[in-house]
Amino acid sequence: MDIISILEDKKHGRALSREQIAYFVKGAADGSIADYQLTALLMAIRLNGMDARETADLTMEMAASGNMLNPDVGGTPVDKHSTGGVGDTTTLVLAPLVAACGGKVLKMSGRGLGHTGGTIDKLESIPGMRVELPEEEFVSIVRRVGCAVVGQSPQLAPADKRLYALRDVTATVDSVPLIVSSILSKKFAAGAKAIVLDVKAGSGAIMPTLDASIELAKAMVSIGDHAGRKIVAVVSGMEEPLGSHVGNALEVKEAIDILSGRAAGPLKYVSLFLGSQMLVASGVANNEEEALTKLNSALESGAGLRKLKEMITAQGGDCRVCDDVSLLPKAPVLYPVKARQDGYLSHVNGTALGLAAQRMGAGRISKTDKIDPAVGFVMEKRIGDFVKAGDTVCTLHAASEQNAKETEQRILDALTFVSDPTPKARLLYALVKPEGVTELND
Amino acid sequence: MDIISILEDKKHGRALSREQIAYFVKGAADGSIADYQLTALLMAIRLNGMDARETADLTMEMAASGNMLNPDVGGTPVDKHSTGGVGDTTTLVLAPLVAACGGKVLKMSGRGLGHTGGTIDKLESIPGMRVELPEEEFVSIVRRVGCAVVGQSPQLAPADKRLYALRDVTATVDSVPLIVSSILSKKFAAGAKAIVLDVKAGSGAIMPTLDASIELAKAMVSIGDHAGRKIVAVVSGMEEPLGSHVGNALEVKEAIDILSGRAAGPLKYVSLFLGSQMLVASGVANNEEEALTKLNSALESGAGLRKLKEMITAQGGDCRVCDDVSLLPKAPVLYPVKARQDGYLSHVNGTALGLAAQRMGAGRISKTDKIDPAVGFVMEKRIGDFVKAGDTVCTLHAASEQNAKETEQRILDALTFVSDPTPKARLLYALVKPEGVTELND
Repeated sequence: MDIISILEDKKHGRALSREQIAYFVKGAADGSIADYQLTALLMAIRLNGMDARETADLTMEMAASGNMLNPDVGGTPVDKHSTGGVGDTTTLVLAPLVAACGGKVLKMSGRGLGHTGGTIDKLESIPGMRVELPEEEFVSIVRRVGCAVVGQSPQLAPADKRLYALRDVTATVDSVPLIVSSILSKKFAAGAKAIVLDVKAGSGAIMPTLDASIELAKAMVSIGDHAGRKIVAVVSGMEEPLGSHVGNALEVKEAIDILSGRAAGPLKYVSLFLGSQMLVASGVANNEEEALTKLNSALESGAGLRKLKEMITAQGGDCRVCDDVSLLPKAPVLYPVKARQDGYLSHVNGTALGLAAQRMGAGRISKTDKIDPAVGFVMEKRIGDFVKAGDTVCTLHAASEQNAKETEQRILDALTFVSDPTPKARLLYALVKPEGVTELND
Repeated sequence: MDIISILEDKKHGRALSREQIAYFVKGAADGSIADYQLTALLMAIRLNGMDARETADLTMEMAASGNMLNPDVGGTPVDKHSTGGVGDTTTLVLAPLVAACGGKVLKMSGRGLGHTGGTIDKLESIPGMRVELPEEEFVSIVRRVGCAVVGQSPQLAPADKRLYALRDVTATVDSVPLIVSSILSKKFAAGAKAIVLDVKAGSGAIMPTLDASIELAKAMVSIGDHAGRKIVAVVSGMEEPLGSHVGNALEVKEAIDILSGRAAGPLKYVSLFLGSQMLVASGVANNEEEALTKLNSALESGAGLRKLKEMITAQGGDCRVCDDVSLLPKAPVLYPVKARQDGYLSHVNGTALGLAAQRMGAGRISKTDKIDPAVGFVMEKRIGDFVKAGDTVCTLHAASEQNAKETEQRILDALTFVSDPTPKARLLYALVKPEGVTELND
């Protein structure tokens, strides 16, 4: 067995055997195969694909490339994963709400590279919050509190860590077998028994079309199901940021606002839908209606917000931010971005918005960059809204006047206005289960 | 401009602009683009291809990635390049013969990795021979003697040096645009104005089919023609070693034997054909017939052998080997490999023969390996020959009895015998010129 013959086979479009897959995954995990050979293989996989059997083998070998947890959390460990998007804060809303209903949310999350920070970068904007916990402490918090959100342990799926970093710099992110194996291997290794996936569709999503997003969802559900997990995927829209807040502390604030009942809208709506799937998948509720009733009641009673406080306290953070969001980091400059003309907001360039947030300091350009937790912006308008010239479309929370002025143009360039009324962006497209695909309507 | 967007474009099968090609070639030459990004791009090029314009741009940018020579050699500098094969010693026969007829042969050659050594490894088996010469000395020898064969200068086409090393370890050698640009960029940079290509077809050739070999030949001729060079390609067979001798000193001996008139056969036949193309391409002869007459006369008069002596002397070597081949390195063990059954030799696995030679010590496994110049073997039978059980099919020149015994089985495994008469292997398939393809008959 050698890497050259594996490269030859995939270059010619042949399926790799389980042994060949095990060989290169081991080589990725232990460093015995060079980066430049792995990236050639990643490009060959991106272009020639992998069949369902290969993808399943790749997922299982990557999961087994490090520790495999089987945590006792006093219930079915449930996890949720989103394929990513700007202003997507569902985890911070969901995890405490599901825990308040009796779910056991075991969430390992990555740090963000590009756009804004990842979920754990957002959590770190809470004073004192620890996101790197030993596995035993993490499991113990989930058992006691019902939820914990921590950084990805380097002992879990180390092959993915190396392959993901290489995909990011070689334009090989958008490959179904590579996405599936990357996401599910980490979930399997962390011990999740119920998994809810949020697969984005629309401009800026990882897959270029709705059909491709549905295919990705089906591939993941099929592999999770064969591996004995309860798994469903929600295909949701990302034509614009899901929440109105983009930035690390700003997104924590928005999650708290929703859990406090002060805010609503698409972020709340999609979070409740994903949460209901988590409760059903983990057996806490028998069906979606029952699950939604539980979640709404946890929201109205304040049980969700109390759970977030418990989780923050358990992870060393200052839970007073939940009662007083002004304790979160605040940017020195507030700056309104105003519309230059009348019109209906018809299109939002999510990639450009993400880049604007990154340039404000909310996201990393290189891995070692420091994130500024305070900066970002709040979108005041959504697709379909009518805007008059001079209306504020977005409020910047900037580190300096100069940065605000630079960002203003970037934001305006990312927005398209038209003269005719235009529909709102769709939030939910489809629910994918092992038994089939159901179309969803908002 | 950045490498990620170049990777994105080629991944999606889009043609790269001249500026994009210049950007990554510069990054390959100066080290500013990482190996792991270059190999992902190489695999994307291998799988999604490049059109004629991209291939031409890649060739010219690679040629311009280092020094560009324009040597005054007192005539049209002519070069010959073979896409490689086991036991292919045409350069050592050709270069002195063409020089004896008045040609100016400017030959830079690579060291071999795998199989047997490259042409300069073979030359180094001559005591004292220097193959790393300063450019001025190299040019001065060509002007004075008419031919010189030296190692590739690291100042010429440095981008190719890096890309070739990466292709070798990522299964991306067999790509028409990458082969074309690699071969021609070095010829252009070295200042060759007339170029004769020997593109191999058959088992073990760089391209898998005759059609693919012809396509490769057409692509190279087209690009050389557009760049203003006189260029032709000969598509020749490599169903078995062209010469009977395989190994470094053994191949030098065979070349001397041909130039002395002691040996003939396919190596002589193909060398004369390639030589006639070199004389026509460089304007020394008006047509093939005139060229062949000159070459045969140089062979019969001993002028070719004298030219080889002059070249060896000019490059510091001991030219007495031309009169007494026993001065070349000799292996301690001579060992006959005998046929185990009667039959017609129908198939020779060239890759397996090359590997056998490599394991004898005639070729390198890794770049730093030392070559044993003395070892190798002499094939006593060719495809189509009838062999009786007990006949010697091959004589090993081995470093030890043990190695000879190990090699014996490898050689026998590489040979297929059948009971029915089988035709000889074809030597020449086609002559490709800018104006079209002519079929050749042996």
